[in-house]
Amino acid sequence: MPATQLSVELLAVTPNALSLIYAAFRQCYHAGFVADMWPRLVNGEVEREVQADFVRKVLESGHDSPVEHASFTFAVAGISRACSHQIVRHRIASYSQQSQRYVDASNMDYVLPPAIAKIPEARERFEAFMAEVGHAYRDLKDILEAHGRKEKAKEDARFVLPQAAETRMVISMNCRALLHFFNLRCCMRAQWEVRALAQAMLALCKAELPAIFTTAGAKCESLGYCPEAPRFACGRYPTREALLAGSGGK
Amino acid sequence: MPATQLSVELLAVTPNALSLIYAAFRQCYHAGFVADMWPRLVNGEVEREVQADFVRKVLESGHDSPVEHASFTFAVAGISRACSHQIVRHRIASYSQQSQRYVDASNMDYVLPPAIAKIPEARERFEAFMAEVGHAYRDLKDILEAHGRKEKAKEDARFVLPQAAETRMVISMNCRALLHFFNLRCCMRAQWEVRALAQAMLALCKAELPAIFTTAGAKCESLGYCPEAPRFACGRYPTREALLAGSGGK
Amino acid sequence: MPATQLSVELLAVTPNALSLIYAAFRQCYHAGFVADMWPRLVNGEVEREVQADFVRKVLESGHDSPVEHASFTFAVAGISRACSHQIVRHRIASYSQQSQRYVDASNMDYVLPPAIAKIPEARERFEAFMAEVGHAYRDLKDILEAHGRKEKAKEDARFVLPQAAETRMVISMNCRALLHFFNLRCCMRAQWEVRALAQAMLALCKAELPAIFTTAGAKCESLGYCPEAPRFACGRYPTREALLAGSGGK
Amino acid sequence: MPATQLSVELLAVTPNALSLIYAAFRQCYHAGFVADMWPRLVNGEVEREVQADFVRKVLESGHDSPVEHASFTFAVAGISRACSHQIVRHRIASYSQQSQRYVDASNMDYVLPPAIAKIPEARERFEAFMAEVGHAYRDLKDILEAHGRKEKAKEDARFVLPQAAETRMVISMNCRALLHFFNLRCCMRAQWEVRALAQAMLALCKAELPAIFTTAGAKCESLGYCPEAPRFACGRYPTREALLAGSGGK
Repeated sequence: MPATQLSVELLAVTPNALSLIYAAFRQCYHAGFVADMWPRLVNGEVEREVQADFVRKVLESGHDSPVEHASFTFAVAGISRACSHQIVRHRIASYSQQSQRYVDASNMDYVLPPAIAKIPEARERFEAFMAEVGHAYRDLKDILEAHGRKEKAKEDARFVLPQAAETRMVISMNCRALLHFFNLRCCMRAQWEVRALAQAMLALCKAELPAIFTTAGAKCESLGYCPEAPRFACGRYPTREALLAGSGGK
Repeated sequence: MPATQLSVELLAVTPNALSLIYAAFRQCYHAGFVADMWPRLVNGEVEREVQADFVRKVLESGHDSPVEHASFTFAVAGISRACSHQIVRHRIASYSQQSQRYVDASNMDYVLPPAIAKIPEARERFEAFMAEVGHAYRDLKDILEAHGRKEKAKEDARFVLPQAAETRMVISMNCRALLHFFNLRCCMRAQWEVRALAQAMLALCKAELPAIFTTAGAKCESLGYCPEAPRFACGRYPTREALLAGSGGK
Repeated sequence: MPATQLSVELLAVTPNALSLIYAAFRQCYHAGFVADMWPRLVNGEVEREVQADFVRKVLESGHDSPVEHASFTFAVAGISRACSHQIVRHRIASYSQQSQRYVDASNMDYVLPPAIAKIPEARERFEAFMAEVGHAYRDLKDILEAHGRKEKAKEDARFVLPQAAETRMVISMNCRALLHFFNLRCCMRAQWEVRALAQAMLALCKAELPAIFTTAGAKCESLGYCPEAPRFACGRYPTREALLAGSGGK
Repeated sequence: MPATQLSVELLAVTPNALSLIYAAFRQCYHAGFVADMWPRLVNGEVEREVQADFVRKVLESGHDSPVEHASFTFAVAGISRACSHQIVRHRIASYSQQSQRYVDASNMDYVLPPAIAKIPEARERFEAFMAEVGHAYRDLKDILEAHGRKEKAKEDARFVLPQAAETRMVISMNCRALLHFFNLRCCMRAQWEVRALAQAMLALCKAELPAIFTTAGAKCESLGYCPEAPRFACGRYPTREALLAGSGGK
């Protein structure tokens, strides 16, 4: 079992995503039917920058549900089961994850935490243990199969696999769910691995749909202050408490 | 206020939807990373019919979550508020609906139920009443504005608007939510208007993604029997009770 | 059809809601099993004030998912269909709403908007129109029944019912969804009717579970500033822009 | 690290759950306001058996959303991370799970799969490996702490913890989500551990609310046939294909 690296690829984005979000916003306040303006949105007769400006302004006013109409689908590899267990807690999303019940893990790769990688003693201990895992998994699978538990041998042998074991998944989220995911997971309080994944996803989103994602990231990026309790603040931005105190607020 | 007609237009579908669903299914059972096979799925090196067959087989086995990765966005007009109130009860979806708080309804169109349309006496009564609605709305809006309730006049005048009043919305649903929506709303037990909408959406889905939607529709279409209580059955298919009785089941 | 009044009654609250939330928070960080401490939470051996303090502190740190474990169920009457259509857009909730397809509306009550009630001319116009609605509904129902559309007569006659028509519903929301609902719907930007409903629900929540709901309400109540765009601010709190400017922020 | 046993305790159920579901069903079809009948439901003036019969009949007709108003909260221990990762994929639920980032796992218990427990050779191999895990975890935690990664040492050392590592969680689900959870997870196709958990939860639900849960379980229990593809059928019930063939259906 060798160490692996994070890999995030964009498989799909809703086509004409900016125009779709613009059209959805417009339908809320417009007397006509947006299907009638749709061709002019898509062909650029209504300029993309005009669409982007409108979307940014409505978003700033706090009306964000129309960004749900556009979705991104990512293929992700090189993450641990510790990471995937955190990801799937985000309920407004769709996941298809590699199954440890059905896929043989005899040669499964693993994620090496950077803090361990840079301490030689820790890295050596970690890698020696990962070799042990491989032996234990294969031994148990062999024993179970020899005792007749053919198809289900993997299902039980997997109990020795570590949180570090690599998993792969296909993830779809709409833009509103993505903005929320980045709010939580790009924050310095998030665990390093899920933060690295979030940052890789955010980079892809920014490239595809800058009107929505330019100011995305940890909550502080769009708020201009840190909403966390002061004892958790990382210091990049002033806390809400500091702001309110400075302004004679609350 | 004239009578209006249902209009459903497809604004967006996830690109390479079949391959995306195929890739998501494969990732669950496959030792590799689907991003590596993705180019061959999209360029047709793995034939579309092979992908479609695989998807159909896994769907039949009851594993349907990967179809969530593909979504459809529709623009809908010519539906009543009676219809939209039913639609938005489907929670796994995104909606952007024309606001009666912000859009002037002085000349709003209305939906004329077919059963009323075909009885001249009923139609006449209905249309006379709709003319009354228009007067009442404009009168109230004028009075409220004259008394200083400028921007909010529409918000209160709207209380006289009928369930028949036309509304427009942008609707996004993923394929799993769509299959469920069709299960419920293409059934003869559904109200005529939401059933007409569901059938129009289904026709668009079948044309775009036949591998997923060919057998879609009311539950009976895929089950081969009617799962409703016998007193609600429309008779097109035998009921579950009849099947079980015929087979000496339960 | 006479005018009706808002009525909100609390049918159920999760028992031992504070302890349940406390236990859920504790389970996240505690090496033991909370079922073992549960009897001491419920019988007050761990004092309620200690539990409340702990819950408040963790909530302030931004970790709010454990409040989902407690739910409230309300019975609501005296609201319009205009209001119910807004409510059911909140997807993290359960609704059972009186059906206009099945319930005869010949004598249905209606909601009279306060701004209309206080202008005699407007009120008279509104009430005269509501009497018209009753006639139209009954006429159409009679005609449809006379033409053989027995059970479905209500389903089609309902198209003349106004947005003002009273509806009743049973609503369940967990505490996290309630906090979000109050954030949006207690704000001065919300429509008057849904705001009145939200305030009535909040009063019941505060009485039952003050540790969670004391600072609940519009977003400004807990933030100490108004997060809306300045042009929408009602003025009760300084805006975020004002705070950031005052502190030399962003 | 010793082997542990599944433990499921019921912390809370919505009070008057049957009456609440009955009231919610009634509100859909009833001209009045269910808050007015509520006292008679709760005090038994409307007999519980009458309420239960009504609920059962409406459920059989396919209208099941009102059962969402009642929820159950369980405290669960003695399950593996392999199990919890499956559980949290159920999105209509609330979870508070013991964190491996914050809780020291130096003495963590583990789940021993029954198929391994009953093969002495496998059990010995498994237990020897679990002892290895403990050493590796403590060694890595020590090294990381010695290198200054104080608070975060657990966060990285956890990467060696096995899928077998015990976790504890508080789980809330409403009755509709529970019925769906049992449909999938009481089935013989489910993994043994999550099936054991589902069966323990179902036993508690049946005792508390038999009107809803008597026929709950794998889909076959309520359908009277197996809806799985024939190659996955366990044989307890005839398959749908067999039924349709036997009845000359589709």
